[in-house]
Amino acid sequence: MTEKDSGNTSIPVGNPAAHAPGMPVVAVIGDGQLARMMQTAAIELGQSLRILAGAKDSSAAQVAADVVLGDYTNIDDLHRAVAGADVMTFDHEHVPTEHLRQLIAEGVNVQPGPDALVNAQDKLVMRKRLRELGAPVPPFLAIENVADAEGFFDAVDGQVCLKARRGGYDGKGVWFPETKDELAQLVEKLLGAGTALMAEKKVALVRELSAMVARTPSGVTQAWPVVESVQRNGVCAEAVAPAPNLSAELQDTTRALAQRIASELGVTGVLAVELFETLDVNGQPEIFVNELAMRPHNTGHWTQDGCVTSQFEQHLRAILDYPLGSTETLAPVTVMANVLGADTDPEQPMAERMLEVWRRYPQAKIHLYGKGHRPGRKIGHVNMVGEDAAQVRAAALASAHYLVHASWD
Amino acid sequence: MTEKDSGNTSIPVGNPAAHAPGMPVVAVIGDGQLARMMQTAAIELGQSLRILAGAKDSSAAQVAADVVLGDYTNIDDLHRAVAGADVMTFDHEHVPTEHLRQLIAEGVNVQPGPDALVNAQDKLVMRKRLRELGAPVPPFLAIENVADAEGFFDAVDGQVCLKARRGGYDGKGVWFPETKDELAQLVEKLLGAGTALMAEKKVALVRELSAMVARTPSGVTQAWPVVESVQRNGVCAEAVAPAPNLSAELQDTTRALAQRIASELGVTGVLAVELFETLDVNGQPEIFVNELAMRPHNTGHWTQDGCVTSQFEQHLRAILDYPLGSTETLAPVTVMANVLGADTDPEQPMAERMLEVWRRYPQAKIHLYGKGHRPGRKIGHVNMVGEDAAQVRAAALASAHYLVHASWD
Ligand SMILES: Nc1ncnc2c1ncn2[C@@H]1O[C@H](COP(=O)(O)OP(=O)(O)OP(=O)(O)O)[C@@H](O)[C@H]1O
Ligand SMILES: Nc1ncnc2c1ncn2[C@@H]1O[C@H](COP(=O)(O)OP(=O)(O)OP(=O)(O)O)[C@@H](O)[C@H]1O
Repeated sequence: MTEKDSGNTSIPVGNPAAHAPGMPVVAVIGDGQLARMMQTAAIELGQSLRILAGAKDSSAAQVAADVVLGDYTNIDDLHRAVAGADVMTFDHEHVPTEHLRQLIAEGVNVQPGPDALVNAQDKLVMRKRLRELGAPVPPFLAIENVADAEGFFDAVDGQVCLKARRGGYDGKGVWFPETKDELAQLVEKLLGAGTALMAEKKVALVRELSAMVARTPSGVTQAWPVVESVQRNGVCAEAVAPAPNLSAELQDTTRALAQRIASELGVTGVLAVELFETLDVNGQPEIFVNELAMRPHNTGHWTQDGCVTSQFEQHLRAILDYPLGSTETLAPVTVMANVLGADTDPEQPMAERMLEVWRRYPQAKIHLYGKGHRPGRKIGHVNMVGEDAAQVRAAALASAHYLVHASWD
Repeated sequence: MTEKDSGNTSIPVGNPAAHAPGMPVVAVIGDGQLARMMQTAAIELGQSLRILAGAKDSSAAQVAADVVLGDYTNIDDLHRAVAGADVMTFDHEHVPTEHLRQLIAEGVNVQPGPDALVNAQDKLVMRKRLRELGAPVPPFLAIENVADAEGFFDAVDGQVCLKARRGGYDGKGVWFPETKDELAQLVEKLLGAGTALMAEKKVALVRELSAMVARTPSGVTQAWPVVESVQRNGVCAEAVAPAPNLSAELQDTTRALAQRIASELGVTGVLAVELFETLDVNGQPEIFVNELAMRPHNTGHWTQDGCVTSQFEQHLRAILDYPLGSTETLAPVTVMANVLGADTDPEQPMAERMLEVWRRYPQAKIHLYGKGHRPGRKIGHVNMVGEDAAQVRAAALASAHYLVHASWD
């Protein structure tokens, strides 16, 4: 980066006082907890963010000094958000591709770019691309009509997973019909409602893994240790780093796969490759790619407390084409447990629940997102480092459980 | 804390959107790097700060969402800063005592309170208090006139250190006159200018140590490992944690001393006890207290990357009377090296200097304060964790040197 590249000398919108002279300004599209935690990384690096937020009191806007209120589907709002910024990046993958192309044509530095991002937006596009690359994905098919679905049902012996191509998250947009009839009805209803679909073979999961890597526009990559991620009701509930009992060979293959995907797809910033571990015909562990995310990811939150370089710092470094940081771990094991809103919010206020957790576990690293309660909503997470995976896991899960339910059960 | 205690439901000044409902609001008086780094801790805890800042683009105001512009010596500005906040704390010790007393009388929760703070404000008051407690301090005397000084000079065989009682920092306000004449002239000049003085025996330093501890209003304390701090030109240049070759016995005594001082003086939040290590008449290591700081301290920056709980998080927890966090280290050794403005600012921009450092040391944790260059000014620090103290120290110092001089020399 030369001084010329740092275009922040006269930020025309927002709060100019929020940006230290000569240091890069990163425009982050989206106001959730990922943008919030990018802010903590940016502060320590002496950089600064401008957040495009939907609301002044959103998770990220609460903690940022330069907030542009607007809509990420509106090109004018995007223009205001990126004015004077060195680079634009994302807290989610929902910015329309045509807007990204227009911004790039206008000279905006968009990281990751739309050609990479489409693989995190469209499950079918991603699978086709990965299959081309020879990356392992379960058998899949585009579903354009009921006949496609029925044919696929037979081809996979009824082991079907139906997915909305776009817009799914946290298991929304994923269905497991048990009969051909159920599948046919589902497909008819969803296609009728305008939901583009694909089907994939339902894999007999041993467990789920996540391989995270960062990549710069110059093509440098740096991987973290592969983690085991535990999903409950389609939502990430915990992550254990490194993944217990993963052979060195599989660890290496998986990291190499993530690095290859990042390179081949031209990903910049942090890439999460969500994977299934299953058993092959010989009873040996085998992996399949399930999903890509091109931003910091829930399965990488452990890096905040268990790793020399957190995924939030690394994302900022990567999109700015800076040298990447060390991904050495700081402890034999780190466990992350999500805090998801319960069906009803316990009477005990969250601020008191924290105290209860800390009384029992002085080593619990509690991260809260400044979000109000909603059932199932991600409102925080707990990280815990230690020596013994079973012990650390129990403590992290108990802590998260207390924060959710105000009880130790 | 009960819900009632959390008075932030209607913040009357500043930016109400910056405060998550039900979570504590901390008013921080001062806008430097300590307030800035409290902000990163607060964000992750889901809490929020309101900063009383002198300028919108000051180190802390740059990164905070609720900034009150004002003067910490003005009671009206202090009132605006604490309105609706759960607790008031400090980035420096310069708020006038009478204002603190008035605020407390009005019901403001001031942590640490003025009776503790005076020991961080007035070197003479502190030494008298510590001597009363039987804590080890070098021989000292209040200097009210030249005769006092000359008498003290003789009493300590000319080994004199003259100190301004108040307002000194980074070695400013500390003098080592070599002759009685020089001392007399200095004292006359300083007293004439209205500087209250004390003298202390000049200690034959082996090295300087820092013992840090946090204490809650309820009286719970938690200490970090004692660190070695290296001063250059009266300014902290580096800190090595834990202090190399400190006997377990001296480690224990020193930690216990810091905890005792915190308790006896009623300190709340983080307390740094700066110490001299010297040799007693038998050639055995002996310690003396030099200085107290009642806030996060330069010698505690290493905790951000080398410890489960950073001093910034611990300070917030302590002043809120929360359970304190674990002070376990994350590595055998952590070294912090300060980045102090050089006499002239190198041509290479700071943003590029960072890259150079990271290219050589991917494990360097660079913290920058968003401050412009000024000779000797603290503009950042580098933390580095590792196994071997000599290696880690060399790498941290080289990194800081590069950030200052844009050269590896
Ligand atoms: N082919 C499959 N075979 C077996 N289980 C599957 C399959 N596809 C998805 N699942 C299960 O459903 C969960 C959610 O699926 P997927 O990750 O595709 O949805 P998503 O809504 O995009 O989730 P996320 O927000 O985690 O990316 C997976 O974590 C896995 O447990
Ligand atoms: N009695 C003494 N004997 C020997 N050296 C001393 C003595 N007092 C101070 N010094 C040296 O001078 C330095 C600065 O002194 P002191 O800490 O009192 O000043 P300060 O301006 O309050 O510094 P700080 O900002 O570090 O608190 C010390 O770190 C030490 O190196």
